[in-house]
Amino acid sequence: MTRAFNFSAGPATLPESVLRQAQAEMLDWHGSGASIVEMSHRGAEFMSVAAEAEADLRRLLDIPDDYAVLFLSGGATTQQALIPLNFARPGQRADYVVSGHWGKTAVKQAGVYVDVNIAASSEPDGYRTLPPRADWQLSPDAAYVHITANETIHGVEFRDVPDTGDVPLVADFSSSIASEPLDVRRYGVIYAGAQKNLGPVGIAVMIVRRDLLERTGQPRADIFDYRSHVARDSMLNTPPTWNWYLAGLVFKWMLAEGGVAEFARRNAAKAALVYGAIDGSGGFYRNEVAHAARSRMNIPFFLPDAELDARFVAEAKAAGLLALKGHKVVGGIRASLYNAMPLAGAEALVAFMADFQQRHG
Amino acid sequence: MTRAFNFSAGPATLPESVLRQAQAEMLDWHGSGASIVEMSHRGAEFMSVAAEAEADLRRLLDIPDDYAVLFLSGGATTQQALIPLNFARPGQRADYVVSGHWGKTAVKQAGVYVDVNIAASSEPDGYRTLPPRADWQLSPDAAYVHITANETIHGVEFRDVPDTGDVPLVADFSSSIASEPLDVRRYGVIYAGAQKNLGPVGIAVMIVRRDLLERTGQPRADIFDYRSHVARDSMLNTPPTWNWYLAGLVFKWMLAEGGVAEFARRNAAKAALVYGAIDGSGGFYRNEVAHAARSRMNIPFFLPDAELDARFVAEAKAAGLLALKGHKVVGGIRASLYNAMPLAGAEALVAFMADFQQRHG
Repeated sequence: MTRAFNFSAGPATLPESVLRQAQAEMLDWHGSGASIVEMSHRGAEFMSVAAEAEADLRRLLDIPDDYAVLFLSGGATTQQALIPLNFARPGQRADYVVSGHWGKTAVKQAGVYVDVNIAASSEPDGYRTLPPRADWQLSPDAAYVHITANETIHGVEFRDVPDTGDVPLVADFSSSIASEPLDVRRYGVIYAGAQKNLGPVGIAVMIVRRDLLERTGQPRADIFDYRSHVARDSMLNTPPTWNWYLAGLVFKWMLAEGGVAEFARRNAAKAALVYGAIDGSGGFYRNEVAHAARSRMNIPFFLPDAELDARFVAEAKAAGLLALKGHKVVGGIRASLYNAMPLAGAEALVAFMADFQQRHG
Repeated sequence: MTRAFNFSAGPATLPESVLRQAQAEMLDWHGSGASIVEMSHRGAEFMSVAAEAEADLRRLLDIPDDYAVLFLSGGATTQQALIPLNFARPGQRADYVVSGHWGKTAVKQAGVYVDVNIAASSEPDGYRTLPPRADWQLSPDAAYVHITANETIHGVEFRDVPDTGDVPLVADFSSSIASEPLDVRRYGVIYAGAQKNLGPVGIAVMIVRRDLLERTGQPRADIFDYRSHVARDSMLNTPPTWNWYLAGLVFKWMLAEGGVAEFARRNAAKAALVYGAIDGSGGFYRNEVAHAARSRMNIPFFLPDAELDARFVAEAKAAGLLALKGHKVVGGIRASLYNAMPLAGAEALVAFMADFQQRHG
């Protein structure tokens, strides 16, 4: 068996040691006689797995006690609908800053529940910049301000936390959570689908400042009420236990590797390698995002024409560099460099880029 | 490694051959160089897994083309909130027949969206019977009639499909789907969390008669709209891919074993063994459900006192018979006998019951 370097934007590559542990435990978890995927979520075994995962995530991200942590089924899109239901009154104003495709998705999901104000958008320039904070048109009575910390498709990333005063900042961190130290206290809500930096697809993490849970929100079923999930430790209904377990293994791996400070260092090094190869290619490879807005996690780039883009993807796959095709919204190439992508993967990509340019440039 | 017999009510035991295949493919799916859990849901590899799973489920349950099949994140409880949002007008009457704990949960989730009419309930007799169809107080203008096909906690099961005329029958089949042949055409909507008979936790299956999708329903976010999920083949957002893959392996296993007719035979044999042991124990073991309403999937029973219940669970576990503790709502013992529980498991349980009675009776 040969493991390739997998640049998928998500579901994304996982640490090999985590997969090996899940493989070893697949038929018999810790001598219990059953797989963790076969166990009741209310049994002592899974309860310990769940509690450890939360404790490890709190340690990893330095989450204060006045923030609740939830592990929920569904991805980030589901949370984009639940956030206005839980934290805004019916039809209340909510501010959205749109810096790419996923910011637009957040607006789409919320629009039926709140009066969405697009406080700023970089759509006019093709999402190649971040809207400068000074230009945001915030509403004084907004329920919250929503941003997308990293745009997986357009490859733009907030590196500074924007100041929104007393209005809580709600951030979709799906594709950059745990990639560097994070000052949780600057946010009201942080949410993330797990399938990029936190582990497997099929589970989302919510980090919610507890005072926000006192908001009445809007009429909603109990299963859509974050307060009910908090009260039952994310076991209001049967949670996606295997996905939670695998995320927990990824948390332990991240802690063992040195935590988010170490991943910040590695991620900066990987991104510098790939952006360096692009910028040093004399225009053969092009990334069109303003330098200050460039994502460390997702690097979209283009070759001189679409035919070369396709050839690049095919030849890269043959060379063991998988899933480099860009998202259909922007086309071209996309290299995702999440925590589980080793430096050797970025080095292999850069070497392949140089070789490809020599042959086709 | 020793695999025990796992009587968990769900997440529940899986076929060993399925777990072995998932184990073998964990680091490298079909020579691709990556695990299926690391692959984009929009790539050719996972798309083929997803399409095969749907085709296999259609074959297994003989689902007609005028029914859509959805694979969704979240369990049955989420669907209990989405069903009124999608299939009823705001505040429209909807009829609910309550035959146990999960029927009550369905009412709780729906109550904020529809005018719930409890058409019948067996709560007054402790859910030991099924409300006879002749006594149901149905509403002529109901959006739908909701039943729980099998009550996992109380161990009562509908074996005949109740006639509801032109009003669509909506059924929670979480704990009995695929346990015997099913006449899909008698239902408007069938839904099930997968974690009992269909595979792993973290994914739900919806089978929806397509004309119901033309109903306007209620204002809701796009991610809560079944029509959007149907239009995108359950890939409106990132689906729980690994869970879907594992469910697909379970479908292939069920087909290879002879399909639902064969499982109906096996499930009847297993249930007959355990009920026979209970009824033949001279009152040492007691199941209080009316014979005609007894579930083949979940058999709750009691020993003479709670201390013996606890001793039974502990000694059974030591003997390799896991997760026999009853749900806290009813107490006692519960043996779940889903498709993946072999006849040998029921035989081992019955032998243990006889031995335990001899020692403690």
